[in-house]
Amino acid sequence: MAHSDLEVTGRRVGIGAKEIARASNSLRQEALRRAAFRIREQSSAILDANAQDVAEGIDQGLNDTSLDRLRLDANRIEAMAQSLEDVADLPDPLGVVVDSSTRPNGLEVSRVRAPLGVVGVIYENRPNVTSDVAGLCIRSGNGVYLRGSSTSLASNKAIVSALRQGLKDVGLHEDVVALVEDTSHETAISFMQLRGILDVVIPRGGPSLIASMEEHATVPVVLDGDGNCHVYVDTDADIDMAISIIVNAKTQRPGVCNAMESLVLHQDVAGEILARLDTEMANVELVGDERACALLPRVSPAGDEDYSTEFLGLKASVVVVDSLEEAVDHIGKHSSGHSEAIVTRKNETAERFLSEVDAAAVLWNASTRFVDGGELGLGSEVGISTQKLHARGPMGLEALTSVRWVIRGQGQVRT
Amino acid sequence: MAHSDLEVTGRRVGIGAKEIARASNSLRQEALRRAAFRIREQSSAILDANAQDVAEGIDQGLNDTSLDRLRLDANRIEAMAQSLEDVADLPDPLGVVVDSSTRPNGLEVSRVRAPLGVVGVIYENRPNVTSDVAGLCIRSGNGVYLRGSSTSLASNKAIVSALRQGLKDVGLHEDVVALVEDTSHETAISFMQLRGILDVVIPRGGPSLIASMEEHATVPVVLDGDGNCHVYVDTDADIDMAISIIVNAKTQRPGVCNAMESLVLHQDVAGEILARLDTEMANVELVGDERACALLPRVSPAGDEDYSTEFLGLKASVVVVDSLEEAVDHIGKHSSGHSEAIVTRKNETAERFLSEVDAAAVLWNASTRFVDGGELGLGSEVGISTQKLHARGPMGLEALTSVRWVIRGQGQVRT
Repeated sequence: MAHSDLEVTGRRVGIGAKEIARASNSLRQEALRRAAFRIREQSSAILDANAQDVAEGIDQGLNDTSLDRLRLDANRIEAMAQSLEDVADLPDPLGVVVDSSTRPNGLEVSRVRAPLGVVGVIYENRPNVTSDVAGLCIRSGNGVYLRGSSTSLASNKAIVSALRQGLKDVGLHEDVVALVEDTSHETAISFMQLRGILDVVIPRGGPSLIASMEEHATVPVVLDGDGNCHVYVDTDADIDMAISIIVNAKTQRPGVCNAMESLVLHQDVAGEILARLDTEMANVELVGDERACALLPRVSPAGDEDYSTEFLGLKASVVVVDSLEEAVDHIGKHSSGHSEAIVTRKNETAERFLSEVDAAAVLWNASTRFVDGGELGLGSEVGISTQKLHARGPMGLEALTSVRWVIRGQGQVRT
Repeated sequence: MAHSDLEVTGRRVGIGAKEIARASNSLRQEALRRAAFRIREQSSAILDANAQDVAEGIDQGLNDTSLDRLRLDANRIEAMAQSLEDVADLPDPLGVVVDSSTRPNGLEVSRVRAPLGVVGVIYENRPNVTSDVAGLCIRSGNGVYLRGSSTSLASNKAIVSALRQGLKDVGLHEDVVALVEDTSHETAISFMQLRGILDVVIPRGGPSLIASMEEHATVPVVLDGDGNCHVYVDTDADIDMAISIIVNAKTQRPGVCNAMESLVLHQDVAGEILARLDTEMANVELVGDERACALLPRVSPAGDEDYSTEFLGLKASVVVVDSLEEAVDHIGKHSSGHSEAIVTRKNETAERFLSEVDAAAVLWNASTRFVDGGELGLGSEVGISTQKLHARGPMGLEALTSVRWVIRGQGQVRT
């Protein structure tokens, strides 16, 4: 795809976006229901395309995790369709009046939610992201320009084709959704520089994508960054609860951004916790500071970089601290600002942790794995923002909107 | 200032920011009241410094508008101090619970307002911006790193010194506020690339600053962009009201971003409006399309670029249209997304305009000059955002905060 094609298609999405921004709530809902219908109707075409992607992935030596993410089956396709229907049932995010007031001069001022415009998303090889993200954008009246990975191109084309037919079925412009079909690195760079075409780019990917965005993006970005998540166990913790949360946060799904990567233990409980983890989390490799190593021989010495690493696997770092302050400092130094948890029985200790740790989500007596749009009641999510601007934490429909000031007067002029 | 000095000072602001983020509401209020006291106390030192800036400005050939913006007097200093006290009296933006819910599994989930961290501001030669912006940042628990223009350096140093003493008076870290004293262009570029030090950069300046930000900034930006504002007069307008709004929007203060730059007239009223403007806005140069030129001889033909130009002076463009749709299209093509107004008696026409025109602010029967933080009830403003992400339109205290997800559980783990 030449750069000019990338622009031409992007401008078509802009035209689609203008139309869907004005579409009624029921029309946007109906478009999603028709898109779900088309996904189900075309499931064999989507599966054929996916089989082709998987075969090429095997030839290219994709690892098992990547192949698992890539692979579709009847259940996964049904889940994609179901998710579109679920998003259709969510309350309309548009037109919501955020606040309103009447000024002393009689001006009626309100702030009202409106779509962002055209949302660009760069993502890896999970084809369900294609329909999930497009569904959220359609529901929120945005156009969406998708740039998926080369390894899922055939699957994405088949899914986008079904989504576009759903839009067409209800008389909406099919260019509300479009896919970048040239998956070269150069085109990805051009994509993140489509100023005036994309209103925002959301990258969903690993450190190399994030680094590339930081270097090249000229379009406003909402960063779905790393999750170097900590669990701190305080001296007043319920030990059984702590073990249960640690094991869940680390091992329930180790490859995701809200998994625990680092364990911080108060010295009063460190010995008991580590002794129990030795058997109850025997499958996890542990690296740690001197005190952790001394308490449990199978903890090997951690390098400084270990405390800042998102292992995304069955490995974690452990440090032992003397106080809550020391725990908060350690987390502050190494946190990626995603999700940080404390386990304690004491209300006062918990509230200090919750207010002093600067992260998108802070948790008390709960697994970091809950930091997810679905789990927190957003219905679905477009990603989890680790930046502070615009949206922070799980991003659902509201994160795909902005506000407009609407001012109604009776001829007022300024003096 | 070498790049490393820029970083070292920035990191000190980061330490100050961490401290003020945890400071109580009353301590932040008291810091502002002491800062106001110090500004008044040191007014003669500030005036001396300002006289030096003005003298150098005259030597360098600054124009009258710039010199007027730069010049301080006793009234302007009192206004700066008063503004700090007014901001102290505004409600605390921190800790506000945006929403909260209890999930089916018992998790208590809330979103709570928290500071952004360190706010960087690049601005031009109005020294009052130094205290206004710093005041808003202190109130909202942020550190602020200021990069003003070279022409106001002495004034800014004197003002920042007073503000820092105010912080110190109440036992807060003085590095909550710092000024970049090297005002070279190279340092400005380095400033907008201070990733990991600045959480956001807000540029307040003209097109060359904006272009430089778009090219070089790697820190998240909230753009305070141009205002190519339109007033559309519909066939059903009250003509007297239309004239009053046009004259106010264009001439009450022509050099600001919310002034009208472009007038769009329905053909039914164009003749009458232009005839009246010929005398009632005789001091404004008009350029326009063929129909406008035909209706009023002193309208000269506009070039295409005129419709996209922010004149910031006594000049405006005029086009005549056949319908609301044509007006909305013209505005959509040339709008900078700042403020767009319609004058009409008809509710239905107004509501269509208000919903279809995509700008930070849309107004019905009111002057575009009202799009301003003070006028819309924010108390004060850090700028007016013309982007859709994070904050749109006038930015007050809320725009200097973000949300954190706070999740309280009873040992829940994910299944």
